[in-house]
Amino acid sequence: LASDPSSLQDFCVADAKNSVLVNGLVCKDPKLAEANDFFSSGLQLAGNTSNAVGSSVTPVNVAQIAGLNTLGISIARIDYAPWGINPPHTHPRASEILTVLEGSLKVGFVTSNPENRLITKVLEKGDVFVFPVGLVHFQQNVGYGNAVAIAALSSQNPGVITIAHAVFGSKPDISADILAKAFQVEKNTIYNFQSKF
Amino acid sequence: LASDPSSLQDFCVADAKNSVLVNGLVCKDPKLAEANDFFSSGLQLAGNTSNAVGSSVTPVNVAQIAGLNTLGISIARIDYAPWGINPPHTHPRASEILTVLEGSLKVGFVTSNPENRLITKVLEKGDVFVFPVGLVHFQQNVGYGNAVAIAALSSQNPGVITIAHAVFGSKPDISADILAKAFQVEKNTIYNFQSKF
Amino acid sequence: LASDPSSLQDFCVADAKNSVLVNGLVCKDPKLAEANDFFSSGLQLAGNTSNAVGSSVTPVNVAQIAGLNTLGISIARIDYAPWGINPPHTHPRASEILTVLEGSLKVGFVTSNPENRLITKVLEKGDVFVFPVGLVHFQQNVGYGNAVAIAALSSQNPGVITIAHAVFGSKPDISADILAKAFQVEKNTIYNFQSKF
Amino acid sequence: LASDPSSLQDFCVADAKNSVLVNGLVCKDPKLAEANDFFSSGLQLAGNTSNAVGSSVTPVNVAQIAGLNTLGISIARIDYAPWGINPPHTHPRASEILTVLEGSLKVGFVTSNPENRLITKVLEKGDVFVFPVGLVHFQQNVGYGNAVAIAALSSQNPGVITIAHAVFGSKPDISADILAKAFQVEKNTIYNFQSKF
Amino acid sequence: LASDPSSLQDFCVADAKNSVLVNGLVCKDPKLAEANDFFSSGLQLAGNTSNAVGSSVTPVNVAQIAGLNTLGISIARIDYAPWGINPPHTHPRASEILTVLEGSLKVGFVTSNPENRLITKVLEKGDVFVFPVGLVHFQQNVGYGNAVAIAALSSQNPGVITIAHAVFGSKPDISADILAKAFQVEKNTIYNFQSKF
Amino acid sequence: LASDPSSLQDFCVADAKNSVLVNGLVCKDPKLAEANDFFSSGLQLAGNTSNAVGSSVTPVNVAQIAGLNTLGISIARIDYAPWGINPPHTHPRASEILTVLEGSLKVGFVTSNPENRLITKVLEKGDVFVFPVGLVHFQQNVGYGNAVAIAALSSQNPGVITIAHAVFGSKPDISADILAKAFQVEKNTIYNFQSKF
Repeated sequence: LASDPSSLQDFCVADAKNSVLVNGLVCKDPKLAEANDFFSSGLQLAGNTSNAVGSSVTPVNVAQIAGLNTLGISIARIDYAPWGINPPHTHPRASEILTVLEGSLKVGFVTSNPENRLITKVLEKGDVFVFPVGLVHFQQNVGYGNAVAIAALSSQNPGVITIAHAVFGSKPDISADILAKAFQVEKNTIYNFQSKF
Repeated sequence: LASDPSSLQDFCVADAKNSVLVNGLVCKDPKLAEANDFFSSGLQLAGNTSNAVGSSVTPVNVAQIAGLNTLGISIARIDYAPWGINPPHTHPRASEILTVLEGSLKVGFVTSNPENRLITKVLEKGDVFVFPVGLVHFQQNVGYGNAVAIAALSSQNPGVITIAHAVFGSKPDISADILAKAFQVEKNTIYNFQSKF
Repeated sequence: LASDPSSLQDFCVADAKNSVLVNGLVCKDPKLAEANDFFSSGLQLAGNTSNAVGSSVTPVNVAQIAGLNTLGISIARIDYAPWGINPPHTHPRASEILTVLEGSLKVGFVTSNPENRLITKVLEKGDVFVFPVGLVHFQQNVGYGNAVAIAALSSQNPGVITIAHAVFGSKPDISADILAKAFQVEKNTIYNFQSKF
Repeated sequence: LASDPSSLQDFCVADAKNSVLVNGLVCKDPKLAEANDFFSSGLQLAGNTSNAVGSSVTPVNVAQIAGLNTLGISIARIDYAPWGINPPHTHPRASEILTVLEGSLKVGFVTSNPENRLITKVLEKGDVFVFPVGLVHFQQNVGYGNAVAIAALSSQNPGVITIAHAVFGSKPDISADILAKAFQVEKNTIYNFQSKF
Repeated sequence: LASDPSSLQDFCVADAKNSVLVNGLVCKDPKLAEANDFFSSGLQLAGNTSNAVGSSVTPVNVAQIAGLNTLGISIARIDYAPWGINPPHTHPRASEILTVLEGSLKVGFVTSNPENRLITKVLEKGDVFVFPVGLVHFQQNVGYGNAVAIAALSSQNPGVITIAHAVFGSKPDISADILAKAFQVEKNTIYNFQSKF
Repeated sequence: LASDPSSLQDFCVADAKNSVLVNGLVCKDPKLAEANDFFSSGLQLAGNTSNAVGSSVTPVNVAQIAGLNTLGISIARIDYAPWGINPPHTHPRASEILTVLEGSLKVGFVTSNPENRLITKVLEKGDVFVFPVGLVHFQQNVGYGNAVAIAALSSQNPGVITIAHAVFGSKPDISADILAKAFQVEKNTIYNFQSKF
């Protein structure tokens, strides 16, 4: 899927200070565009994986590089502590291609209804895997040390919907009776889940 | 979001018998196209809501009307028993606009990370609500009788990812250790969820 | 046809008060988006069909629901008095899928040059029919009572070109000598047509 | 409007002999592509304007140049006898930019409902005018001699819907009672119109 | 390739005075649109070919006709002195279809790596040729007199990258050591090339 | 720029054995899709930079991963020997975002006519830079050791046009008189350039 409109000029560097909001972002004067508008640094640094899931995502999208505006692409660095996971999530506006830089990752995605087929693979350093747009997918560090991957995504602003947070951690909460019926459990179980997020 | 490519001819009626598979579907000879290729019937009939969630979706997309191929739109009828729900799900390839034909529905959608804001509303007969592409959304019958809605979707084949089924009911299962960490519960709780789907 | 660009954020609720005009509409601050931005009411009410054609179209597009901006879809309710018609028209920016809620409708569309083939069908309650983007189409109530339909369209702003009004009722008029030659009739016949619109 | 999907390879020369039909056309082996696939001749020749409207359109689209497949553009030469017209029509899949090579043309287009505003201009040799996608437009030779124009269109297969032919000349006819109500005239007047096409 | 987003209204005439910059251009109030917004003149006039390459391009794109904004098309007139060339260049955002109005042109384009196949043809008056989006292409006047062509392009703002100017005439210069290695020549040869542009 | 059409199903794994050619590639039966269709390996291995330019590009696009078909993204590993360059080139169908994994790179791109502005930057490990679609760009290893980068591109098949090869190494050659005039040098200089490719 190509979720971004086409360019109508050489580039349209996002003007973050402009109060006018459009689909994507308005541009700064192209004469004022400079190399730093197309640049970011720091992706050599490991993210902090000391959290509940043992992983960290460092995005490099239009929020970090203004020059990505209208260009239909972005990347992210993902760090995984041993047994850390990038929990099941979707990107509503992008497909993803993931490259393992270090370590071993078990990855997978699930097809839509009615099959809900899980397609899964263990990746080693130098392996590449694809997650089609909008499908639920995840990664798990299955090696002995840290793991690192680079993900490229087909949108300047792919969006992330972490299933656990969207379903059990929304603000305000989705009614427990809805979730109890959806997951076919007691409401108390839902309350327990909701207390975590 | 407009998730379908543009038409390059008046229409491209899907040729379901052709073994060649493309993005979308190949077309039958336009000279052989007839009114029935653009037609389906039966949407006046209530779906069977005698199931765990108390709802039923009757789709009318390119699988039901071959003439929808390349046209970027489809619809569905949704029936809800009292307190029935259309459980949290996403459409990876379409936005949705829902019209209540009968009854009262509580509807909502959740924005992507990091806000995960729940935007919710109770709808009555004649009310219309929009679910943006790719976001988790749901409906619940909150009236005393049955409820009926028509949903229109911005793709010939929007796809449905029911969260409960994709996460806890995939074939094969997503590893319980991944889900236990993602939802921050014991593995036994995950096994219990997985046994339901 | 998918006539709208793709979304570059979860949603872009139209800011009708902003004086800056773009392809589509500029967005309000997403933090200020609320449920009512994705909502409209009143579609249970019949339109007033006491007019020359005996029909009424109640649109629900981006002008009624600001949240439809960038989402590529809209709907309309159409009411038909007995023998009322929705006269021949085109949507320059959308395909349409029509569902009959009540009554009987004769519907049809005409393919482009050189065939100009009329594809037509009589629909009953619960029947669904498709009108491909840009083609001339119409509906006629052929039952004994009122008829009601819901039309879904593949654009936030599909546009309507009613042939009679565009050709014989433009402001100012198209020169009668052009129309006389186009329709191969006397100029006086054209003047007569023009006097009606 | 850009009504064609993007290219996914250098070119995709249409293979007219292939029985598989898709949105657009399937490609021949790119190794067999040759200069003639991107070429046509004869546009220096005037079309035959000895017909009821006094004009002739010589198209150069994907039907004439197989190499236009997937490229989103086509052209046409239009010849006009004195007082000849290119009658009111729409292109369902393309905007048009017209250049006058010889003579004087009155041109115009009509906006969609509810304004139906006619925007019109007299053009001389070397003048250029734009007709937005899907809108009803026309040209009339208002000079003393023949006129010639080149039209460029934003689709490999823009389609043409001549209003008179689509409305009064479809095969089979649109019911006279529908057209009588649409144009607010007697059925006999409609029969008269239909007899011309 | 169709490099422009779709229209979301009848037209979006560019408002050149507005300081807000977007992908494409913001629109003026449609009520203020007038015929001159869709019009330009002067294309009957030959360009001045008294320059190093013996050719002249007169563009008619969104910079000349504000009404082309969002419509995905533009044109240009090209004049060639005897033996004049339109030097090798690419359009990053458009395919091109060229019609010879006067004279004889040798034209060609080169496919991408690894084939780099040159597809070439000599065109006479009335001949038409296609240059697929993004590929290097050129024309040369091979007749005895002047030559004239009309080029139509599938973007409101196709862009032009003249290879000689982009590679040897950028401001500032690309380092001579990079170009020397790229073209496998001495740095002095590169300095010589750079001195020309 | 998003140069690929949108997905109309969860995925459309390319069927390389099918003789039917389309824009992109036809799909294999989705029931037969398996993890290996979304996978490739070997990107941890350095490419062979013992060549005239001292660099090597290892692509991972739809030719290597069939599952990338219709998904609008691909990547490549680029290796650079000391002072090696990735010579000036364009991608006709993709924007690029480049991440330095090892070493120091001088990178740059040149805007289109008439400015031909060079925007350039020296990158270190962990730095990221963007090259907008269709623009001429390059990289040069300016460190003491080897350099490695990962490039992500916004198309399943971005295409590469190496300027030196397209202009001086096409098969057959572009006429020397055309190139001599384009680069404003003697034909003998052109013959010399052509002998290198």
